Amino acid sequence: MSTSAFAEAPPVAPDVIAQIKAVVGDAGYSEDAMRVDPKLTEWRGKWKGHTPLLVLPKSTEEVAAVVKICYDNNVAITPQGGNTGLVGGQIPFGEILISLERMKAVRDVAPTDDTMVLEAGLTLLDAQQIAEKANRYFPLSLAAEGTATVGGVISTNAGGTAVLRYGVTRDLVSGLEVVLPNGEIFNGLKRLRKDNTGYDIKHMFIGAEGTLGIITAASLKLFPIMNSRSTAIVAFESSQKAIDLLVRAKQETGGQVEAFELMGRYGLSLVLKNIPDTREPLGAEYPWYALIEVASGDPEGASASMERLLEAAFEENLVLDAVIAQNETQAAEFWRLREDHSAAEKVEGAAWKHDISVPLSRMAEYMEEGAKAIEAFLPGARLVAFGHVGDGNVHFNVILPVGMDPATFNAMRDEGAKVVHDLVHQYEGSISAEHGLGRMKTQEALLYKDPVAVAAMQALRLALDPKRIMNPHVLF
Amino acid sequence: MSTSAFAEAPPVAPDVIAQIKAVVGDAGYSEDAMRVDPKLTEWRGKWKGHTPLLVLPKSTEEVAAVVKICYDNNVAITPQGGNTGLVGGQIPFGEILISLERMKAVRDVAPTDDTMVLEAGLTLLDAQQIAEKANRYFPLSLAAEGTATVGGVISTNAGGTAVLRYGVTRDLVSGLEVVLPNGEIFNGLKRLRKDNTGYDIKHMFIGAEGTLGIITAASLKLFPIMNSRSTAIVAFESSQKAIDLLVRAKQETGGQVEAFELMGRYGLSLVLKNIPDTREPLGAEYPWYALIEVASGDPEGASASMERLLEAAFEENLVLDAVIAQNETQAAEFWRLREDHSAAEKVEGAAWKHDISVPLSRMAEYMEEGAKAIEAFLPGARLVAFGHVGDGNVHFNVILPVGMDPATFNAMRDEGAKVVHDLVHQYEGSISAEHGLGRMKTQEALLYKDPVAVAAMQALRLALDPKRIMNPHVLF
Repeated sequence: MSTSAFAEAPPVAPDVIAQIKAVVGDAGYSEDAMRVDPKLTEWRGKWKGHTPLLVLPKSTEEVAAVVKICYDNNVAITPQGGNTGLVGGQIPFGEILISLERMKAVRDVAPTDDTMVLEAGLTLLDAQQIAEKANRYFPLSLAAEGTATVGGVISTNAGGTAVLRYGVTRDLVSGLEVVLPNGEIFNGLKRLRKDNTGYDIKHMFIGAEGTLGIITAASLKLFPIMNSRSTAIVAFESSQKAIDLLVRAKQETGGQVEAFELMGRYGLSLVLKNIPDTREPLGAEYPWYALIEVASGDPEGASASMERLLEAAFEENLVLDAVIAQNETQAAEFWRLREDHSAAEKVEGAAWKHDISVPLSRMAEYMEEGAKAIEAFLPGARLVAFGHVGDGNVHFNVILPVGMDPATFNAMRDEGAKVVHDLVHQYEGSISAEHGLGRMKTQEALLYKDPVAVAAMQALRLALDPKRIMNPHVLF
Repeated sequence: MSTSAFAEAPPVAPDVIAQIKAVVGDAGYSEDAMRVDPKLTEWRGKWKGHTPLLVLPKSTEEVAAVVKICYDNNVAITPQGGNTGLVGGQIPFGEILISLERMKAVRDVAPTDDTMVLEAGLTLLDAQQIAEKANRYFPLSLAAEGTATVGGVISTNAGGTAVLRYGVTRDLVSGLEVVLPNGEIFNGLKRLRKDNTGYDIKHMFIGAEGTLGIITAASLKLFPIMNSRSTAIVAFESSQKAIDLLVRAKQETGGQVEAFELMGRYGLSLVLKNIPDTREPLGAEYPWYALIEVASGDPEGASASMERLLEAAFEENLVLDAVIAQNETQAAEFWRLREDHSAAEKVEGAAWKHDISVPLSRMAEYMEEGAKAIEAFLPGARLVAFGHVGDGNVHFNVILPVGMDPATFNAMRDEGAKVVHDLVHQYEGSISAEHGLGRMKTQEALLYKDPVAVAAMQALRLALDPKRIMNPHVLF
């Protein structure tokens, strides 16, 4: 097996292409460059692939028939959702490309059961809106939600901004329908919260990055809509103090913290400088900030919780300054300060991005040591660390030193990543907290993963996909 | 392969026994009947097994060495936790019996990370107390918690009374250490909330009933201790009204409902009649009751939520009567009414017990149809339906008709189960919501499970345990 990032699938015989076309009909595939090309390029332009055929099945049965043809003929497949992935797992290099963009049925919405059954081609935004119409909340939320699909976020076990309270995508799935690599349909669209009748194999497919089959539909968990919400920007003298407040906040609110996003001064200063219509949230500048959101079922609960929390934090000198949003407009302004970090970074030029997690108890120390290691490796490099610290996850990004040649900087990318990731490994962390491995990080992950775990994953993969036709160059 | 309930493992060669003894030393095994026999009998006396050797390893390395010997010699193993299982999965019939009762180390408690790493031999009660000492809450709670072990509850994916808010055991595990069937050690004791670097294979071992390896230690999630708690007994004219209130309660409290346990009048009347020192909770008799518990981080939050909820429910004629516990003693009294259902049933004589789940939206109809089906099958049979309706899970138990010969009744058990389970299947439910399949229900489950799912499970099992040495007669 090869897991090289740009490894190519062998050519596909014309009669196989013809068989697939016959199964899906004229509307079920495309050879139109206008339609195909956008699916061959990753949105930042990092990957440019190619495919012998873009297949667009309209039903689970069609997906199954196409996969069966590929299985019988040893033809490799890359499934693609909304093409918003950041590690190249969705880009084919000679594989048949299957997109479920025509599978957008809402199969069932059952508010009493707190579940909805959606086809894989619906977007995450669709999912949120379908839930809302049923007077429920679907908490998965991320920047690309208007484009990312249900199938895609499940296949990559996406994270996002509400993980602290609701968990990752894995925690939001109660059942799956999957076309297995041999073309059979696994019908596991359960609405049950409890079912102990054998292995819960849906977990194999969640986060499998399309290597164990194609998720065609999912039963998703719904949650109550909160009756009050309070958002604040809080300033700290150190990242450790921010983490201390997070720990306190979780305890004191009884788990009502929905978001706890950390920002350093340098990252915030880039937002203020590079993004129009943003403004300093507090009266002075501070080394560290957190955006904190608390939500409650009690209509008065969130602001009461937030005030109680900050009052105690001031008394104990945990925080330097704080401002609570007075209305939704102000809350949205606060969120923009956090969400525009990526855009603000981009203006500064080339950057190495790292999506890492470490145990919360070691996070502050990791960030300090990481900053030193980067400075030693490339003096003048500008570190922007921000993100979902509530989940032990930060985006630890390194912008090129002012005046450095971008090509030289980009050429050092892998070495730079090794500096960051070696340290992550030393701190018992993960080199991919939420983005997955794809083609980009699979080889690198082998440096850090337990060989017994990798061997077990390979054995399990072989059991479900003995011919390794599903996204063969992604994962182990 | 055979999955017959009483299928026997072949005899084990004396030299294999000798090798195992040499690895674990004198303290690491037992042939003393006083020590071995209690582990061969299920606590209700339904199963009486036998073993060539009880092995009591003291470390993960010893477990690995013993399993490796068995693997090399094709010798079957049954792992056993606290021996509180209800489906016979822990009873050997000729297999080597491995108990981790000597593995009780607390490897790590990290309140900042909201995790603790415990060895498999600690009891569930130990786990709760270790969490409490760290000022955290470990929510898994069930009747057998003083005896059930960490390894056992994970291997069976146990449910219990706090699933509604915190999920089943699967949802409470952040990492596992497992000795695989080939004797290798999978070291997955992560404290991370987010790690997307390949398949999350811990989920294969959770609920696998000892068929994929031996869980030696686990990293468990910790939660905030709630600052207020309110418990009520509420009366309804129908089970549907109870479910309507449950749905409302989840929404209005923003997910603060910790328990919602349904009881019918007949079950409650048996508790009042058969259990000393219990008393009628309300001023009159009603057809249905629920025990509701709400908990909040806000010191005043729980009782305010409960009062608001019940007030609105009275106004809309959802409830007939209600009483809120005024103190912890009264709350404990209310809980006893629920928890003594099994003991109260026992006094009435033989019963068929069913641990089923159906989607909440179909629960009331299922219970009505189920009652009719049981009455048609065995007129006079006494139905006691109670339990974790908040999870769509009820214990649907059938007591023999007054005056019927118990032997005749017991002989009809399988046929009776078929009546109950056929209907469960029709209602998209599960025939084992929380107890697992073990030796008792594996064959029966095959009647209802998706054959594609069963084939996938078998392929995955074969991948990890090619010689099928782990609990070979349990699961598929």
